[in-house]
Amino acid sequence: MIVVMQEGCTKQQVSHVVKLVREMKLKDHVIVGTERTVVAVIGDDRFKDRSVLESCPGVDRVVPILAPYKIASRQTHPEPSVIPLGGSMGATCGGKRLCVMAGPCSVEDRSQVLELAHAIKEHGGTVLRGGAFKPRTNPYEFQGLGEKGLEILAEAREQTGLAIVTEVMSVDQVLLVARYADVLQIGTRNMHNFNLLVAVGRTNKPVLLKRGWSSTFNEFMLAAEYIIQAGNPNVILCERGIRTHEEYVRNTLALAIVPAVKRESHLPIIVDPAHGTGRAYMVPSMCRAAVAAGADGLMIEVHQDPEHALTDGAQSLSPDAFAQTMKETRAVAEAVGREL
Amino acid sequence: MIVVMQEGCTKQQVSHVVKLVREMKLKDHVIVGTERTVVAVIGDDRFKDRSVLESCPGVDRVVPILAPYKIASRQTHPEPSVIPLGGSMGATCGGKRLCVMAGPCSVEDRSQVLELAHAIKEHGGTVLRGGAFKPRTNPYEFQGLGEKGLEILAEAREQTGLAIVTEVMSVDQVLLVARYADVLQIGTRNMHNFNLLVAVGRTNKPVLLKRGWSSTFNEFMLAAEYIIQAGNPNVILCERGIRTHEEYVRNTLALAIVPAVKRESHLPIIVDPAHGTGRAYMVPSMCRAAVAAGADGLMIEVHQDPEHALTDGAQSLSPDAFAQTMKETRAVAEAVGREL
Amino acid sequence: MIVVMQEGCTKQQVSHVVKLVREMKLKDHVIVGTERTVVAVIGDDRFKDRSVLESCPGVDRVVPILAPYKIASRQTHPEPSVIPLGGSMGATCGGKRLCVMAGPCSVEDRSQVLELAHAIKEHGGTVLRGGAFKPRTNPYEFQGLGEKGLEILAEAREQTGLAIVTEVMSVDQVLLVARYADVLQIGTRNMHNFNLLVAVGRTNKPVLLKRGWSSTFNEFMLAAEYIIQAGNPNVILCERGIRTHEEYVRNTLALAIVPAVKRESHLPIIVDPAHGTGRAYMVPSMCRAAVAAGADGLMIEVHQDPEHALTDGAQSLSPDAFAQTMKETRAVAEAVGREL
Amino acid sequence: MIVVMQEGCTKQQVSHVVKLVREMKLKDHVIVGTERTVVAVIGDDRFKDRSVLESCPGVDRVVPILAPYKIASRQTHPEPSVIPLGGSMGATCGGKRLCVMAGPCSVEDRSQVLELAHAIKEHGGTVLRGGAFKPRTNPYEFQGLGEKGLEILAEAREQTGLAIVTEVMSVDQVLLVARYADVLQIGTRNMHNFNLLVAVGRTNKPVLLKRGWSSTFNEFMLAAEYIIQAGNPNVILCERGIRTHEEYVRNTLALAIVPAVKRESHLPIIVDPAHGTGRAYMVPSMCRAAVAAGADGLMIEVHQDPEHALTDGAQSLSPDAFAQTMKETRAVAEAVGREL
Repeated sequence: MIVVMQEGCTKQQVSHVVKLVREMKLKDHVIVGTERTVVAVIGDDRFKDRSVLESCPGVDRVVPILAPYKIASRQTHPEPSVIPLGGSMGATCGGKRLCVMAGPCSVEDRSQVLELAHAIKEHGGTVLRGGAFKPRTNPYEFQGLGEKGLEILAEAREQTGLAIVTEVMSVDQVLLVARYADVLQIGTRNMHNFNLLVAVGRTNKPVLLKRGWSSTFNEFMLAAEYIIQAGNPNVILCERGIRTHEEYVRNTLALAIVPAVKRESHLPIIVDPAHGTGRAYMVPSMCRAAVAAGADGLMIEVHQDPEHALTDGAQSLSPDAFAQTMKETRAVAEAVGREL
Repeated sequence: MIVVMQEGCTKQQVSHVVKLVREMKLKDHVIVGTERTVVAVIGDDRFKDRSVLESCPGVDRVVPILAPYKIASRQTHPEPSVIPLGGSMGATCGGKRLCVMAGPCSVEDRSQVLELAHAIKEHGGTVLRGGAFKPRTNPYEFQGLGEKGLEILAEAREQTGLAIVTEVMSVDQVLLVARYADVLQIGTRNMHNFNLLVAVGRTNKPVLLKRGWSSTFNEFMLAAEYIIQAGNPNVILCERGIRTHEEYVRNTLALAIVPAVKRESHLPIIVDPAHGTGRAYMVPSMCRAAVAAGADGLMIEVHQDPEHALTDGAQSLSPDAFAQTMKETRAVAEAVGREL
Repeated sequence: MIVVMQEGCTKQQVSHVVKLVREMKLKDHVIVGTERTVVAVIGDDRFKDRSVLESCPGVDRVVPILAPYKIASRQTHPEPSVIPLGGSMGATCGGKRLCVMAGPCSVEDRSQVLELAHAIKEHGGTVLRGGAFKPRTNPYEFQGLGEKGLEILAEAREQTGLAIVTEVMSVDQVLLVARYADVLQIGTRNMHNFNLLVAVGRTNKPVLLKRGWSSTFNEFMLAAEYIIQAGNPNVILCERGIRTHEEYVRNTLALAIVPAVKRESHLPIIVDPAHGTGRAYMVPSMCRAAVAAGADGLMIEVHQDPEHALTDGAQSLSPDAFAQTMKETRAVAEAVGREL
Repeated sequence: MIVVMQEGCTKQQVSHVVKLVREMKLKDHVIVGTERTVVAVIGDDRFKDRSVLESCPGVDRVVPILAPYKIASRQTHPEPSVIPLGGSMGATCGGKRLCVMAGPCSVEDRSQVLELAHAIKEHGGTVLRGGAFKPRTNPYEFQGLGEKGLEILAEAREQTGLAIVTEVMSVDQVLLVARYADVLQIGTRNMHNFNLLVAVGRTNKPVLLKRGWSSTFNEFMLAAEYIIQAGNPNVILCERGIRTHEEYVRNTLALAIVPAVKRESHLPIIVDPAHGTGRAYMVPSMCRAAVAAGADGLMIEVHQDPEHALTDGAQSLSPDAFAQTMKETRAVAEAVGREL
C-alpha cells in the first residue's frame, strides 16, 4: 500500500507512520515529492488493517496496491479452471462448451419440473435450475416448497441426466441441500453472508456464486476467496445485474465484468440475463451479448406458463422462446469459437 | 395496482388481463384513455405477484399503488413507537430523549471496553455498542472475539447500567447473542437475510436494523415488516449510508430518509455517521446534521486508540473527540426540541 | 397520469385534485379502492406539469402513464429509421449493414489522421471520428486543434470517402462544425444542454447523440425529441456507459439499452465501448457483445501510438488491434444476420 | 502519481515506463515490492495525461496522488473565502452570517416576484432567486420569460435591496444575464459545460456553481477551477443532490460534501434541499441538517401558490412554510455558532 501524507505534514507525522508500518512487520520507503510525501509500504499487507494508517494525523489517504484476494487470482492459478458439475451428462463450466443452467424460478410441482427438464435438455441445456427455498423481499410472497422441491429436482436429474443447481439460503440448510443438489447456489443477497460462504466452502459440491447487486469487483472475488479458503476450489461466478439509477430495467447487466474476470481470475463466469434485466423481452438479446463477451455460460429462467408462475413470471421464457434463444445464441457461440 | 397496456393493444389482451385479475380474487376497472388503456386493480394485492401481469401480451408495465409493507406503516400505527432498550438507565429510542449508541467497532479486550463504557456514559451515551462477531469482507481480517466478547459487554453493562447492542450474523448465533445483549443488531449485509430476520423476530429483544447499503425504502420497510410479523414489534431503523458513485466517502449518508421514515412509519430511526461516511473527520458534522434532521439517535464508534483499533480505526472517534461531538450535538438537539 | 391519494385523504382533497385536473383541460376518473383512492387522468398530459398535483394536500404521488416523448417513439414511426451519413461510400446507420465510426480521440496532426483514415477504411470502418474541440474535465489538459482539426478531417474524407463525425460543444460552434462535418456529435456532458440540442436540430446534418452518463431512458429519448422537434429527424443514439458504484471500469456499459431502444423507438443506436469501459483490453469483448445485442454500429477509438496519444490513450486500440477486433466482430455480426 | 505494474511484468516494461516518465519531464522512483513493482512519479503531473502510462504493456493501473485542482484548494488559499454578493444589504457568502437565496423556481409575473421578494426579505432571506431562462428536460414544458424575467428581478432588487441570482444557460446569454443579475448561477446540467464556465469566469459577477448530479468531488472542484482560472475568484459551491438508486426522493442530498469542501477548499458551499430531495415536505428537515452540517447558506424555492407554479411546484414552500422553516433553521444556526 501507499500512504499519501497531507500537504504540509510534519516530519514527526511521517516518522509516526513509519513506526506503525514497522509495527506491522512491513518495510517502509519514504518518497518526498514536490508537493506531497508518500510512504510506500513493502510486503504482503493483505492481512493488515489499512484504516489504522488512515486515522494517523497528517495522513490524507491510503492506496492499496495488492489485490485483496489471492487464491482466486490468475497469478496464483494461471490456467482457467474447468469445473465438473455432476449429473450424468458430464457437464462442466469453464471449458470450450458453454454451460446452460435453465429452469423455473421456483419449483412449483413435479410434473412442471419434469416436463421442463426434458425440454431444457432437448434444446441444449446442461443444468436444471429451480428454487426450493426462495429469498423473498416481501414476507407475504411464496417462499418455496423446501425439501419436497429438492426431491422433485433429484427425480428430474435421474430422468434426464441434467445436473441440478438450487439456492441455499442459510447455514442450517447447507447439508440438506447438498444431499440433493449437484451445485449449490449462493444468491445475490447472500454474497456478503460470510458464515454461509464458509459453510458451502466446507462441502464438496461446486458453488454458483451470484454477485451482490451492489458489490465491487474486489468484494466479489473476496467472496469467492472465502469459499475456496474453506476448502472448496470449485466456484463459478455469476453476473446478475447491479443496482443503478436506471429505471427501465430492474437491474443493469454489467457485461464488462466478463473480460475483467477473465483477466484477473481463473474462475469461470456465467451470466443471468433474466435477473440482470428483469424483463423477459431483453433476455434473448442479452444471452447473445453475454456469450459474445466471452461468458462461460448462461442461467435462464424457463416456465411453461409464465403468466401463472408463482415467482418471476415477468422474466421467464416459455419453452419455445427458450428453444429459439438457444438457437440464436448457438450461432453467436460458434462465431466466438465456443460450443453450445 | 395499475396495469398499463401497450399502445395498440387488442381487446383480447385487455380481456385476458381482466381474467387474470379476477383469478387473483381482485376487482378490475378498465379505463380507456386517449392513447393508452389501463386496468385499475382494486383490493389488497400485497399478496399477489404482479410479475404475472407484467408478462402478459399487450402489457407495458404494472404500477403498484399500495406500499408493500403494512404493519410497519404509520397508517396501521399512527403514534410513533418508543422502544425500551434495557440496561438499568431506562434507555429508550423514539422519545424526546435521543438514544446514543457508542463504543468500539469490535470488542478487543476487557479493560478497553470497561474504560470506554464509563467514558461513554459520562458524556451522555445510553447504549454501549461493540462487535463480538464481525462480518468481514476479507477472510484474512479479524473476525471478532465471539462469546468472550459478549461476556465483556455484559460486564460493562453491570458496571455502568448502559444497555448493550451487538451484531448477530446468523441464525445459529441468535440464542447465544440474545442471552447477553439487550438489543440485537442486524448489519447492513444481512438486511436481506430473511431467515435471520425471522429468527430475531422470534426473540423478545429489540432489534436494531441497519439499512442495506443499496436497499430501497420499501425493501428497508419490508425487512422491518419481516421482524414485526414474526412477533417482535420493537424494531429500530438505522441509516448507515448507501453505495453511490461518490468516491471521497466510503458511503453516501442519505439523511433525507429520516423525514421519509417519520412520514411513512411509526418506527424510530437513528443514524450511523461513521459507517455512513467512512471518515472520522466527518462524524461530528454528520452527527449534528442527523439530529437536526430529526433522527431519534446516533450510533458512534469510539476507541481509545483509533490507530491500534483492530477494525474501522479510520472512522472511530477518540473519547475526547466523542465528548466534544456530544457537546456540539447537544446544542443542536436542544435547538430542535430534543434532549441528549 | 394516475394521482394516488394518501390513505385517509378527505373527500375535499379528492375534489380539489379533480378541479385541478379539469383546469388542465383533462378528464378525471376517480376510483375508490379498498385502501387507496386514485384519480386516473385521461388525455394528453405530456404538456402538463404533474408537480402541480404532487403538491396538493392529500396526494401521495403522481404516476405518469404516457411516455414523455412522442416523435422519437416507435408508435409515431413504426419502421426503424435508416439514416444516411454522408461521405462518398453511401454509409448509413440503422440498416442491415453496421456502421463503424472509428478514429483518434483527438485530431492531433494531419499525417496521423490521414494514415488512420486509410487503415480504418481498409478494415471496414465507414465513418471517421476525431475530436477538434475537446471537452476536458481538467482545464490544464489539451483542448483540441479547433478549426485546423476540422480541415484535416475534411481532407481525410476527400482521400477516403469516409464520412466525418466530430463533436460540437457549444451553440456558437454549430455552424462552423456543420460546414466541415457530415455528422455532428453531441457529447455525454451536453446531452442536457438544451440550447445546443435545438441548435443542431436546426441544421441538416445527422446528429450522433451520446447518452448522458447518468441520464434515464426517458431523458435520453427527450434529448432526441428536442433535436427532432427543432426540425432534424436524423438522430443516432449512442450508449457510452453510465456512472455507477463499479470501480474497475471508468463507466458501466449498459447494453440492455439496445433492446429497450429497439422496442420503444425507431431511432438507430450504436455503442461506444471505449468510453463505456475506459479500458482498452475490454473493447474487443464489448464490441462483440454490442453487435450480438443488436446494436446498429460501434464507435471505436484507434490511435497509431496509444502511449503518445494526447487524450484517452488508455482506451484506444492500435490499428492492428482494430483490424483484429473488426474481424472478430464481423463473425458475430454474421451470426446475428448483420453485415460489417 | 504511482504507476502500479502487473505481477510478473518484465524489466523492459518497467524501463519503458521510466522512459515515458522522463519524457514528461518528471522524475521516477522504482520500488520493487514482494509481489508488485511500482514506479513513483515525482513532480507536478497535473498537466500530464496519465492514460499514456495506463496503456503501456505491463502496467496494471495508475494512481493519482495530487488533487487535480490547485487554486480552488485550501493549500493555495488557507483562509476561507467570503464572497460579496451585491444588492444594497451587504449580503455575503462564507462568513458567520448564513446566506439564504430564496424565491420562485421560475419568474412567472411581476406582482408574484415583488410580493415574494418582500416576504423573503422579511423572514431573513438575503438573495432573491428566480429563473428567467429554464433548462427543461422536456421540450414541451415552460421555458421561462427570458429578458422580461430579468427586468422583474432587477425591479425586486431595487425595492428590497436583496441581491439577485439567476441561471445562465449558454455562452450567448452571459452578457445579458450579467447586466441584470448580481450572481450568475450555473445549473447542475451545465457543470461540465466548460465553455460556459470560462465565459462566466470572464465576468466580474460571483458565480453560484451547482454540482452536477453525478459528478465526483474532484470534478466539482475542477469546474470551480475553470471559473477561477478564467479570472473570477468568486465561486460559491452548491450541493443539490446526486442521482442514486434511491426511489423515494428525486435526488439523494449528499450532505457529507459540506465537511469535505471545508477541509479541501476555501470556497463557501450552500445547500439546495428542494432540488436535493424533490419533495417539499423534506425541505425544512434538510435545511436544518445542512446548517448543522456547517453549510454557508441555503437555496430555497418559495411560491405563493405551489399548486399553480409553472415549474417545480412539488418542491416549493409557501411563504408561511418558508417563514417557519427560517425560524427553525435560525435556532440550529445559533446552536452551531452562525447567524441567520
